[in-house]
Amino acid sequence: MSDLQLVPGNSLLTATPEEGRQLAVKLARLIIKLTQPDDEKRRQQRAIYADNPMMLISIGQTVAAEFATIAAANNYWRDQPQAH
Amino acid sequence: MSDLQLVPGNSLLTATPEEGRQLAVKLARLIIKLTQPDDEKRRQQRAIYADNPMMLISIGQTVAAEFATIAAANNYWRDQPQAH
Amino acid sequence: MSDLQLVPGNSLLTATPEEGRQLAVKLARLIIKLTQPDDEKRRQQRAIYADNPMMLISIGQTVAAEFATIAAANNYWRDQPQAH
Amino acid sequence: MSDLQLVPGNSLLTATPEEGRQLAVKLARLIIKLTQPDDEKRRQQRAIYADNPMMLISIGQTVAAEFATIAAANNYWRDQPQAH
Amino acid sequence: MSDLQLVPGNSLLTATPEEGRQLAVKLARLIIKLTQPDDEKRRQQRAIYADNPMMLISIGQTVAAEFATIAAANNYWRDQPQAH
Amino acid sequence: MSDLQLVPGNSLLTATPEEGRQLAVKLARLIIKLTQPDDEKRRQQRAIYADNPMMLISIGQTVAAEFATIAAANNYWRDQPQAH
Repeated sequence: MSDLQLVPGNSLLTATPEEGRQLAVKLARLIIKLTQPDDEKRRQQRAIYADNPMMLISIGQTVAAEFATIAAANNYWRDQPQAH
Repeated sequence: MSDLQLVPGNSLLTATPEEGRQLAVKLARLIIKLTQPDDEKRRQQRAIYADNPMMLISIGQTVAAEFATIAAANNYWRDQPQAH
Repeated sequence: MSDLQLVPGNSLLTATPEEGRQLAVKLARLIIKLTQPDDEKRRQQRAIYADNPMMLISIGQTVAAEFATIAAANNYWRDQPQAH
Repeated sequence: MSDLQLVPGNSLLTATPEEGRQLAVKLARLIIKLTQPDDEKRRQQRAIYADNPMMLISIGQTVAAEFATIAAANNYWRDQPQAH
Repeated sequence: MSDLQLVPGNSLLTATPEEGRQLAVKLARLIIKLTQPDDEKRRQQRAIYADNPMMLISIGQTVAAEFATIAAANNYWRDQPQAH
Repeated sequence: MSDLQLVPGNSLLTATPEEGRQLAVKLARLIIKLTQPDDEKRRQQRAIYADNPMMLISIGQTVAAEFATIAAANNYWRDQPQAH
């Protein structure tokens, strides 16, 4: 397999939900990078995603799935003070 | 990554299921905003979603996935009195 | 966000699996209503769903996802007598 | 909502994995019946599903999702003797 | 419903992850067989799947979902010696 | 079924999240190999995936699903020092 690191920091643990969400986005993007390693092609594809409503929704489903795992790993950051 | 805050309030904890559901919708929308930051383009895309049955269904799947995580985080708000 | 209530009764707890399933259907429909608030348009879209096999399957996936959360919230109604 | 019963027997509990799987199929079909109540139209749609590879795969995803919930409800039938 | 057995061995328990993965594939295939019982048609459809990248990916999603349930049922085979 | 080994090492346990992520990618690819055993055809298909934004997103969803199972199997590698 490629030398690309697929889990930044090699950990699912983050200090906050916000950082967990950002990690979810990164995990999703790194799988795309693994499958399409060409930086210029990925740049062009991002422009396609951004203008395609169905792709935007599908990206949201991917991030939701990654985030579910990260949130469970962090026990949903329950020790934080409630903010909502 | 963008400066956009992806988890409003930086917490998954909410007082009620209704607030949890609203948070799920917001989380889903913020990933779309991250991928398509142009407000006017997103406004146009919302009109496309609303008139496309398959996209409406897919949005529902995204929200369901986000809500599953939020509901687990809140232990399903089991301490609330039963309403149904 | 809209004033539409997204969780009827503001609770995931139901007395029976049947009521839980009905709640899952309602949760799914309310996200569609949030995205397409026009009653007449939604009425027309329902006719499209009903005649489109792929959309019917996708609606099933949405309800399955919502129901998974509701079933977990209710601890799978395990205290009921076994009926199957 | 329609008078259609969405959970046969109003329980997720089954004696065996086989019965659980059959229940998963029934749950999935009942959502389709709720959305398309016309028996003759559903009969025609079944013929479409059966000849469409992508629809067959998608039906499989729906059943897998329903079964995940039923299997968890039954604690994966772990008290049965191991058969594989 | 058809007489087709949907869960081979009527158990989700397997001795190893490899056997669990094979069971996941079988569960997925048996739902397709339930929906399309004609052996010759299914043989033709397999040739279509194999040459269609999007269908291959979707089959992978189905197997992943089935395997998640089987892996949980087997408590992830944690009592095995670690091999990776 | 084919003689192809579907779970490398016949274990879901890995030392780190990075190795778990790589295992998720392998599990996903092995299901594709099971369905399309021809090496040359798969090589051609990889070129198609890499240039198709929607397929890239769908591959990401598959890996996310496989990873969710692997991460749970490893108890989210919580005993590791936090890196984020």
